Amino acid sequence: MTALVGVIMGSKSDWSTLSHTADMLEQLGIPFEVKVVSAHRTPDLLFQYAEEAESRGIEVIIAGAGGAAHLPGMCAAKTHLPVLGVPVQSSMLSGVDSLLSIVQMPAGVPVATLAIGKAGAINAALLSASILGAKHPHYHQALKDFRTRQTDTVLDHPDPRQA
Amino acid sequence: MTALVGVIMGSKSDWSTLSHTADMLEQLGIPFEVKVVSAHRTPDLLFQYAEEAESRGIEVIIAGAGGAAHLPGMCAAKTHLPVLGVPVQSSMLSGVDSLLSIVQMPAGVPVATLAIGKAGAINAALLSASILGAKHPHYHQALKDFRTRQTDTVLDHPDPRQA
Amino acid sequence: MTALVGVIMGSKSDWSTLSHTADMLEQLGIPFEVKVVSAHRTPDLLFQYAEEAESRGIEVIIAGAGGAAHLPGMCAAKTHLPVLGVPVQSSMLSGVDSLLSIVQMPAGVPVATLAIGKAGAINAALLSASILGAKHPHYHQALKDFRTRQTDTVLDHPDPRQA
Amino acid sequence: MTALVGVIMGSKSDWSTLSHTADMLEQLGIPFEVKVVSAHRTPDLLFQYAEEAESRGIEVIIAGAGGAAHLPGMCAAKTHLPVLGVPVQSSMLSGVDSLLSIVQMPAGVPVATLAIGKAGAINAALLSASILGAKHPHYHQALKDFRTRQTDTVLDHPDPRQA
Amino acid sequence: MTALVGVIMGSKSDWSTLSHTADMLEQLGIPFEVKVVSAHRTPDLLFQYAEEAESRGIEVIIAGAGGAAHLPGMCAAKTHLPVLGVPVQSSMLSGVDSLLSIVQMPAGVPVATLAIGKAGAINAALLSASILGAKHPHYHQALKDFRTRQTDTVLDHPDPRQA
Amino acid sequence: MTALVGVIMGSKSDWSTLSHTADMLEQLGIPFEVKVVSAHRTPDLLFQYAEEAESRGIEVIIAGAGGAAHLPGMCAAKTHLPVLGVPVQSSMLSGVDSLLSIVQMPAGVPVATLAIGKAGAINAALLSASILGAKHPHYHQALKDFRTRQTDTVLDHPDPRQA
Amino acid sequence: MTALVGVIMGSKSDWSTLSHTADMLEQLGIPFEVKVVSAHRTPDLLFQYAEEAESRGIEVIIAGAGGAAHLPGMCAAKTHLPVLGVPVQSSMLSGVDSLLSIVQMPAGVPVATLAIGKAGAINAALLSASILGAKHPHYHQALKDFRTRQTDTVLDHPDPRQA
Amino acid sequence: MTALVGVIMGSKSDWSTLSHTADMLEQLGIPFEVKVVSAHRTPDLLFQYAEEAESRGIEVIIAGAGGAAHLPGMCAAKTHLPVLGVPVQSSMLSGVDSLLSIVQMPAGVPVATLAIGKAGAINAALLSASILGAKHPHYHQALKDFRTRQTDTVLDHPDPRQA
Repeated sequence: MTALVGVIMGSKSDWSTLSHTADMLEQLGIPFEVKVVSAHRTPDLLFQYAEEAESRGIEVIIAGAGGAAHLPGMCAAKTHLPVLGVPVQSSMLSGVDSLLSIVQMPAGVPVATLAIGKAGAINAALLSASILGAKHPHYHQALKDFRTRQTDTVLDHPDPRQA
Repeated sequence: MTALVGVIMGSKSDWSTLSHTADMLEQLGIPFEVKVVSAHRTPDLLFQYAEEAESRGIEVIIAGAGGAAHLPGMCAAKTHLPVLGVPVQSSMLSGVDSLLSIVQMPAGVPVATLAIGKAGAINAALLSASILGAKHPHYHQALKDFRTRQTDTVLDHPDPRQA
Repeated sequence: MTALVGVIMGSKSDWSTLSHTADMLEQLGIPFEVKVVSAHRTPDLLFQYAEEAESRGIEVIIAGAGGAAHLPGMCAAKTHLPVLGVPVQSSMLSGVDSLLSIVQMPAGVPVATLAIGKAGAINAALLSASILGAKHPHYHQALKDFRTRQTDTVLDHPDPRQA
Repeated sequence: MTALVGVIMGSKSDWSTLSHTADMLEQLGIPFEVKVVSAHRTPDLLFQYAEEAESRGIEVIIAGAGGAAHLPGMCAAKTHLPVLGVPVQSSMLSGVDSLLSIVQMPAGVPVATLAIGKAGAINAALLSASILGAKHPHYHQALKDFRTRQTDTVLDHPDPRQA
Repeated sequence: MTALVGVIMGSKSDWSTLSHTADMLEQLGIPFEVKVVSAHRTPDLLFQYAEEAESRGIEVIIAGAGGAAHLPGMCAAKTHLPVLGVPVQSSMLSGVDSLLSIVQMPAGVPVATLAIGKAGAINAALLSASILGAKHPHYHQALKDFRTRQTDTVLDHPDPRQA
Repeated sequence: MTALVGVIMGSKSDWSTLSHTADMLEQLGIPFEVKVVSAHRTPDLLFQYAEEAESRGIEVIIAGAGGAAHLPGMCAAKTHLPVLGVPVQSSMLSGVDSLLSIVQMPAGVPVATLAIGKAGAINAALLSASILGAKHPHYHQALKDFRTRQTDTVLDHPDPRQA
Repeated sequence: MTALVGVIMGSKSDWSTLSHTADMLEQLGIPFEVKVVSAHRTPDLLFQYAEEAESRGIEVIIAGAGGAAHLPGMCAAKTHLPVLGVPVQSSMLSGVDSLLSIVQMPAGVPVATLAIGKAGAINAALLSASILGAKHPHYHQALKDFRTRQTDTVLDHPDPRQA
Repeated sequence: MTALVGVIMGSKSDWSTLSHTADMLEQLGIPFEVKVVSAHRTPDLLFQYAEEAESRGIEVIIAGAGGAAHLPGMCAAKTHLPVLGVPVQSSMLSGVDSLLSIVQMPAGVPVATLAIGKAGAINAALLSASILGAKHPHYHQALKDFRTRQTDTVLDHPDPRQA
């Protein structure tokens, strides 16, 4: 099945964060691909990936990176698809550098930025379902079902003292 | 023409930022509505707005707020549409509080966060064009045209010393 | 005995912090209830809880949350009772995001914010005793007794080198 | 009429912030007093003020201070009344120093901290109404009326483009 | 031997930091005393300690505290002796709150602030030697000797690869 | 004369900062070129510029940018020349975002980062003189002469009270 | 009269801050000298100044600097006198860089750090009076007199609403 | 073989970071020397090292330091060689203090600053290769080869799920 979401990351070490994106996409039944694409070590590959994604059928790109996280922004500079950025927690600055490098894009080229780390990685998958849902109603439904289950889980376990 | 994008903000004072969103949506030809909806002063209106937006034909919600900016996140909690959050610069903390209150959403309910202030406001409009583009190809084209003009403007004026 | 203090938190994982609130309320003899109420996953439950708390006899609400911590502020938007906010330490940003999301409320809807983490959780219980004390003198007395014991403990052990 | 709320501040320059507290208390009909009490320049006065407040009929203390803002915390160390802290914006660090000095109180002695600057000053008055309301129902009603008017003002002016 | 330096700290848990001050004072041969004095839990003791220190022969006060660290500043408000402040690393904010609460004193009442944690604790002892040295030349000499040994240690081991 | 230093910036508005680089390069007699090259609006131009710079005779690239400042890092990803990054002060976050986006490059692709704003812009020119000096001794001499004059200016005016 | 306090600063522009030190020293009757000594532009002068200060009769050195403020720390590295550091507010980062560069000295070489800007400049003078007071009782008395007047000024004007 | 790069650090504990610089210099075949030189404990040695480096054949100085990291800046004040600064992660503030102390140099004396910690240490070696490359073409070639291998490593392992 052709991938609708392209999940890219700056290095293999980002997989411990972005694997949560993959898990949630799988849970929602959204076809996706994953690839290491480094803005700084493989800039030409990044440009090629971003330029060709749309023609290959990709509808949403999720890019995770840490530190001076240029991957999401440079990807956005080379495509008209929605680019979702996941700041990976850096070892030195808790991910503040990653967050600011991704979110503070100049007027003209947006990156839809999610929370730092695992929560952002999961939410990037949910946001892509929300975006895809307009054209693909079954992903809209899958998102609704997930959200309903999520709500029910809280409602069914109101007491924090019980495991 | 029915609005496809709903632009809401926490107070009238946010309009000086969110007006840039409206200007860009107009430039892209995307029908939209604007409304003051305060998470803290009109919580019921916020829930009603978020619940009814989809059935009224809204496909993307852009929410701008400052300080303890709860508007985008609470809106996202009550809809399955993509919610784009614009952190409005606060007078005390440069918008860091707004940014963190919007972007650091827990796993399960994403907000697509843009840059603080004017750049983020403009980019929210461009991101909504990118999202709408999948289902409405003419907005995809409008975005491409804007991006091409934007690139040409830089290429045509390479010398920073000339006005 | 009817609960006078309602202790709510955004997720079960917040219990490791909010349990310190419960322990101190017990020590002070103040009847309370605890419940998981998520602003983002169960927004309707949150509104219902906040709306009905006063009529159920609750006089103070303590709300703990982390990250984009909207629970205390949204609770405050739906009640006229004092709402005490406890920022739970987030794994990424040491709780700075939680603190700013809770304390930087706009004019019109206050949240009484305590310190990040365990100290804030304990202090929320003490502050509620102080608030309840005006109408219920025995809680005022319980607070005084606690504070006297606390002072005596320091006075009785002036040497930091002794265990 | 005997003051129920004591509004103190570290220096005269804090009045430009704390005057908003006084204005809101007046609007709510709550009797109050205002006084300059400096933790560092008049420590004995501070201790005397905090020790005697309760016996003089004060039920809530609002303390505003900037920089190394010790006034609210030291006041709380010398009274069992609820102490509400308003961080005054400092000229150097936007009030971050004031906020952290007030909110990060150790376990045992709480300060109910509000937002930095004007919003926090207004909210300290509203929070005191909420606290006083339990024993003095007419302040509870005054708070409800204020909140209703506040909500109506937003509902009546939904269009941000109109003055 | 009468103590010349008074080392106080807000709680027993600060001893793991302030013990480095004691060790260095011992190494320099400066007589000192150590005591737990809490600004918030034992405010009267703090005032008594600060007021009486000079008449008891103390010439320098070293005060260590964490979080909303009011101990050094309130001590300085009640004495004319030099007060040296050591920010103890807080568990939540790395000691930034401690540092700002100590160093950002208003004009009129200074605290000589050292680095966060162990380095600051050691340096408080060295600074007190430097201060005492004017009146007590043998502490000036002890400081010189320590500094010479310290320099020699680096000069004698220039290669970082050797243990 | 062929440019040895290429000065590029993300937008025309950065010229108010980077003009200080140009002024200092002129003062040192180093031939240079200036150009607007936007990482996000003209990514292909950026890659072309970085790829061709060495063959055109450029020996040092100075890149200034603000916000999510990707220009220096992406330039460094496409050349083996030394790339010097100047963080331009952003209107929202004082340039902290610019600084972190430039300096926190991952292992493998360095950017030599200077101070935020005007000081960094001037220093980028001086650093390029220092780098060029190894191969071009007259720039080494020009730097020495500048540094001597700079020192003499301070030595000749030791009294801060005189204009 | 021989200067007892040496006031040095990194550049003439720091005089607008350090002049407050000079004013307060004059008010206290303490003889002092002022001089521009730049750590980076005149490093040899700095070393000479620090090395010779003690033999010239200086008993306390006050050093003010901004940005990467190395002046106080390097001065402390070359003398055994107490060195008081005043962080000058930087234009970009509100003085956070100045503060951290001065206060975070490693174990072995302390700098007594004061608040950022004018408050710190005034307090450096007061702290030097406190330090000098041990050996020179009239400065101890001058400090006491200043502190008494300061307290009386607050006590005499308790109403913040009066000019 | 004469060292072309001098690697200095403030203390032995910095070797765990700077050893990455040494490893990369070895990999690139660049002759270097390593030495502990403390700005605060051995200021005279630092001045001597910086003054003599050029005449000893050193062409690039790499200086790593933490906290109030004065080593790179003071070294730059005493030489006309390019000085590369590596902020060592401090235990208290994640290296933010180190970074700001190194990068925020005043106009007139630049330090080429790299990322905090290991990434910066590796990149300092790569940047020195880039700088040396102009005069020594084989180091330019060594850098190119390293960069090519680095790119190939990413291209050869595109799947993050494979070890």
